[in-house]
Amino acid sequence: MSPAISTTETQRVAIDLGERSYDIHIGADLIGHAGTFAGLPTANTGVIVTNEVVAPLYLASLRAALSGRHARVLDVVLPDGESHKHWQTLQTIFDRLLEAGCDRKTVLYALGGGVVGDMTGFAAACYMRGVPFVQVPTTLLAQVDSSVGGKTGINHPLGKNMIGAFHQPLSVVCDLDALRSLPDREFSAGMAEIIKYGPIADMAFLGWIEDHIEALMARDPAHLAHAVRRSCEIKAQVVGADERESGLRAILNFGHTFGHAIEAGMGYGAWLHGEAVGCGMVMAARLSQALGLVDEAFVERLKRLVVRAGLPVVAPVLDPARNAERYLELMRVDKKAEAGEIRFVLIDPPGRASMRPASDAVVAGVIARSCQPA
Amino acid sequence: MSPAISTTETQRVAIDLGERSYDIHIGADLIGHAGTFAGLPTANTGVIVTNEVVAPLYLASLRAALSGRHARVLDVVLPDGESHKHWQTLQTIFDRLLEAGCDRKTVLYALGGGVVGDMTGFAAACYMRGVPFVQVPTTLLAQVDSSVGGKTGINHPLGKNMIGAFHQPLSVVCDLDALRSLPDREFSAGMAEIIKYGPIADMAFLGWIEDHIEALMARDPAHLAHAVRRSCEIKAQVVGADERESGLRAILNFGHTFGHAIEAGMGYGAWLHGEAVGCGMVMAARLSQALGLVDEAFVERLKRLVVRAGLPVVAPVLDPARNAERYLELMRVDKKAEAGEIRFVLIDPPGRASMRPASDAVVAGVIARSCQPA
Repeated sequence: MSPAISTTETQRVAIDLGERSYDIHIGADLIGHAGTFAGLPTANTGVIVTNEVVAPLYLASLRAALSGRHARVLDVVLPDGESHKHWQTLQTIFDRLLEAGCDRKTVLYALGGGVVGDMTGFAAACYMRGVPFVQVPTTLLAQVDSSVGGKTGINHPLGKNMIGAFHQPLSVVCDLDALRSLPDREFSAGMAEIIKYGPIADMAFLGWIEDHIEALMARDPAHLAHAVRRSCEIKAQVVGADERESGLRAILNFGHTFGHAIEAGMGYGAWLHGEAVGCGMVMAARLSQALGLVDEAFVERLKRLVVRAGLPVVAPVLDPARNAERYLELMRVDKKAEAGEIRFVLIDPPGRASMRPASDAVVAGVIARSCQPA
Repeated sequence: MSPAISTTETQRVAIDLGERSYDIHIGADLIGHAGTFAGLPTANTGVIVTNEVVAPLYLASLRAALSGRHARVLDVVLPDGESHKHWQTLQTIFDRLLEAGCDRKTVLYALGGGVVGDMTGFAAACYMRGVPFVQVPTTLLAQVDSSVGGKTGINHPLGKNMIGAFHQPLSVVCDLDALRSLPDREFSAGMAEIIKYGPIADMAFLGWIEDHIEALMARDPAHLAHAVRRSCEIKAQVVGADERESGLRAILNFGHTFGHAIEAGMGYGAWLHGEAVGCGMVMAARLSQALGLVDEAFVERLKRLVVRAGLPVVAPVLDPARNAERYLELMRVDKKAEAGEIRFVLIDPPGRASMRPASDAVVAGVIARSCQPA
């Protein structure tokens, strides 16, 4: 059953974090309208941070929407892609802010996908020890995951998102129209994070995704609106209970421990983050099965859905000579690891997740099985 | 009258910041004793960050004191000086942490002066989005100012401390014995920050410093203990009322607006931070006088004390052709500026500070007067 949602009506999901609370706005045609940003601070300067792919599509609209709010609206256009998510790119934001004499009331706007959001948020966290920022995610992945919850950061050659901050945005604006321009591969990558919310928190939602996967992949606005809203609701609930990832919040990383190893092992950018997470979820489900927490039917069900979302389910061989060792090595520097012990997000039972260690031998078996073509 | 303090007794000043509250410990012979760190978390790894000047003096002692708390104690030895307070040096800390597989429970220890403390604190704020750290300041300036209050950061070519975070330490350990090894010039630099607390908050303390300046400059332990404690008490009070510098806390920057212009204009490291603040306080006092907030006697009294503390009171000429313009230009990128308007910390009346703008013409007059030899 399709949810009774009109795409012309903007939905609102509240993130409850005390004085750092904010709303996620989900709807059509939001970027170009001044009303979308009503209630936010009217500082002298607003700075839109975006990338060279998104700028031609939405920069002019956002600039127009903000022209009444700020005496001047500047922009910084970054190169596109995860491979640029490092300090040197971040530095170009700081250079621009300082050259333009931006003060600590300046509002930054992150217009783009997860990479732009993470870097803009981290720049906002650090510039003059913290300025406000707004997330305007233009990819599905950013709308349902990375723009919500205040995690910001950059990669280090030795690990993904290793340098960063918790810095909550003032508002998140999810314009569903922006998803129309998304390449198929990136759309699928976003679907991985939507699917994720099922196994960890809401099996009914997983069933709904299965029932409507065709409509979702065809980017039907009403179905997308529901999927984005439900994803944000679940994320809001988890983040509201554990802002700084001292426990519960880590369940949002289901599939990410294996996924990060794939991304790092292949070189950032070779696999999209969502692709690595899609494959990583199947691996984490297999590990859950190996530990007796779920049955094979659950693993197959999840795998089938990941395939239908256009995502890879066969893990890459990272090192022909010592593949499992390479995976384990990369997973040991995961932020969730403690004293070298990898802590996996496992499904136990379907609809609920928990953090557990696992023996290297069992994990190696899962890796070997996952690297074989179906 | 000398205060009734035995230097063998450790003093404790509490910083009240809710769940981020912590204590400052002030006493003799603290670094080398395990008991100093009792009550702090016992993580698998502790990492001492220090510099090449401090390492030969105190690294072995601190390492010994921590050996019972952490399964392994690593160290990172940075180059010495303000000119290294930038991203590249920070990166060497991240490299070391990641190469050693440090997890997010790792505790960092900042062993050194303000530069080491600011960089270690910022590294702790960003590593895996935040790990705990302990301040072990070994300079007078760091003990009475920079180690307390959670301001961390690095410099940018276009401005001092422009990139940073508020990240409170778990504890601050002020070992008065460490002050014995301090070069005279650095000791004087620390005196600037001690003197600062008088005009902005406590004229009785200013009187006490005047009465005991010889004993202080001779580094008499009992007098130093009192000066450090009273400074920390005032700072604790201000920071407790305004952790993130939304208002009141800015008064701690008395002398710093002019001081930052001197540091940036001369090139970081040419003048010590405390030297620039010493001279900057006299300039800010002159500006207060020019605006009718204090009388000339107050300016002369402050200037006399700054001279007795071994600090410069004649401001440097930053640009022979357009000196005032250069000062104003540099002050406009100060973090306290708003929409290009410089906000000065002024004394009004002695013992109380407030933030105000001032016309360029009046400021230019103060700069011209301050650059003339007495």
